[in-house]
Amino acid sequence: MDGLYMRRCVELARKAASHTSPNPMVSYVIVRDGRVVGEGFHPKAGQPHAEVFALRDAGDLAENATAYVSLEPCNHYGRTPPCTEAFINAKVKDVVVGMTDPDLIVAFKGIERLKSARIDVRLCAEEEASCRKLNEAYIHRMLTRKAFATFRTTLSMNGIVVNQIGSTSDQPGGYYSQLLKEYDGVIVSSNFAKTNSLPISHEAGAKQPLYIIIAQGEDSQLNIPFIKEGSAPEAVVLTDSPISVELAGIEVLVLDRMNLESILQLLAQRGLCNVLVDFREARGDISSLLNNFQEAKLQQKVLVELLPIWTVSQGPCDLAFGGSQSFPLKDMEHKEVNGCVLLEGYV
Amino acid sequence: MDGLYMRRCVELARKAASHTSPNPMVSYVIVRDGRVVGEGFHPKAGQPHAEVFALRDAGDLAENATAYVSLEPCNHYGRTPPCTEAFINAKVKDVVVGMTDPDLIVAFKGIERLKSARIDVRLCAEEEASCRKLNEAYIHRMLTRKAFATFRTTLSMNGIVVNQIGSTSDQPGGYYSQLLKEYDGVIVSSNFAKTNSLPISHEAGAKQPLYIIIAQGEDSQLNIPFIKEGSAPEAVVLTDSPISVELAGIEVLVLDRMNLESILQLLAQRGLCNVLVDFREARGDISSLLNNFQEAKLQQKVLVELLPIWTVSQGPCDLAFGGSQSFPLKDMEHKEVNGCVLLEGYV
Repeated sequence: MDGLYMRRCVELARKAASHTSPNPMVSYVIVRDGRVVGEGFHPKAGQPHAEVFALRDAGDLAENATAYVSLEPCNHYGRTPPCTEAFINAKVKDVVVGMTDPDLIVAFKGIERLKSARIDVRLCAEEEASCRKLNEAYIHRMLTRKAFATFRTTLSMNGIVVNQIGSTSDQPGGYYSQLLKEYDGVIVSSNFAKTNSLPISHEAGAKQPLYIIIAQGEDSQLNIPFIKEGSAPEAVVLTDSPISVELAGIEVLVLDRMNLESILQLLAQRGLCNVLVDFREARGDISSLLNNFQEAKLQQKVLVELLPIWTVSQGPCDLAFGGSQSFPLKDMEHKEVNGCVLLEGYV
Repeated sequence: MDGLYMRRCVELARKAASHTSPNPMVSYVIVRDGRVVGEGFHPKAGQPHAEVFALRDAGDLAENATAYVSLEPCNHYGRTPPCTEAFINAKVKDVVVGMTDPDLIVAFKGIERLKSARIDVRLCAEEEASCRKLNEAYIHRMLTRKAFATFRTTLSMNGIVVNQIGSTSDQPGGYYSQLLKEYDGVIVSSNFAKTNSLPISHEAGAKQPLYIIIAQGEDSQLNIPFIKEGSAPEAVVLTDSPISVELAGIEVLVLDRMNLESILQLLAQRGLCNVLVDFREARGDISSLLNNFQEAKLQQKVLVELLPIWTVSQGPCDLAFGGSQSFPLKDMEHKEVNGCVLLEGYV
């Protein structure tokens, strides 16, 4: 039954997607005598950890119960007391852990603390992969000090990058609206930001992503948008040369090195775990960031939406042609959504 | 049970893929008392029609039997006597037809002839779509006097056209080897033909396609390959200006109008039912054929192979960007083969 409760943990934790950064998504399910007596998840960075909600929900029934958690409980004092102490105080019988802490310095410390208090601890091997996937961005940032980057684009069937989203995909419940809900930030080109309003997630309770607008070279700066009024999401402009146009209140950062590595480091420092590299046009600021073998490899994931259309390309140079350098993607998945095919792979 | 036997007809007929052009693929399954007593398919243009083999196979058991056929039997004298007469002579009881003749001038003529000889005829509605798909190229050529064109390309996950085929796809049984077996011709650019040997199908009994090498402009002509020795497939060069380099024995046709419409008409006149537009590089001769809305629409089908790789693009202009004109594709299908995703759609 461990797998069943651990899968429930993963589902529950994911409810707070993008709200928890830079913390991981964590939830507890507390089970006594084959019955769930308490549940709780970490709702948002700065708010209490998951165990507080789960133990409050379980009350006295936590005694002698089994606690399921997707990530090893922490054993250190931060903004909140250690999770381990709460379980020791609540006298749970055993704890089932989905994965150990990705921070190798503290890994196993929480498990050891629980064991020293005579609480049984076991790993739920069958759900370790889903627990890792749940917090893939958090883990990546922890280990590399860079944000987890996901490349996203929409292609026509003849391989042309189109600045559109598949039918109904940006509606509530649609693929793109759900995607935006899961990301802390979205990287777009200055040209996109100039000519399009910054998309928002229409999911209930979604935290809108931070928009990172890339402006390379003096030409691009002319494309930096003026801040829109009202509900426009928060945005920051990254540029490689001092800005010459007036920007009403928008933050502008001039980077010494305008490459993906610097950008992903900067975003990690700012507490973003994951960022969508939203590739809407095949030329320009983002294309030049990615058109380098080593830089492109800094991305962790690739999401492609294929539209059931044929598009005629425009401009003096028509279509892309393949270079000699490529690297493989793994764990490919594909599915159909509203007549479009969505593909996902990992670098 | 009609559907069962009709599906067997379609499978059997397809064995002769590309050998029958400009004829359709046809087979008969003859059933008496719930048992298949005879089968036969049209093996090759110039050889006897399917009914000759099926009735020979059934012998006397054809009397009072039911004959299943994917396409309405013909009722006219061509290189062979009418199919209808053979069934009348063999005294079959009834005939089940998958689809009526696409040539509206002779449609229903075969059915009427059988009925006039007191043979029952019924349509198998449930398999009409698969019968139409079996001979989609034949039907298209019959109705439009143009070859049925299928666009094929291989893309990396970041939308770059690559001149390669997915792992094992060009081996016997692989996707590309099977595809070549099904096409009467393959259109390639002069640049491709110059730097690559012309691929062949490795399937048992495959008839190799005719290669149609497109050479536009004087620059392209320098790229026209010299004929390779030995087992190289047959090739013809289509060009828009008189050829200035020596071609050892290869046929060269100078077209007044170097566009897809003229080319597909020419190939239909030569007896080709279907042709693969093999898009291996995003620039050059084929790209210019397709980069026009009306011309691109002359294609009937789109086949895309997505490789699980990221490719860095080369050259002064990096990537394609989408134009304002696009048209929808329908009946999309997708599947995974050896880690690659294959997509198919119809114009």
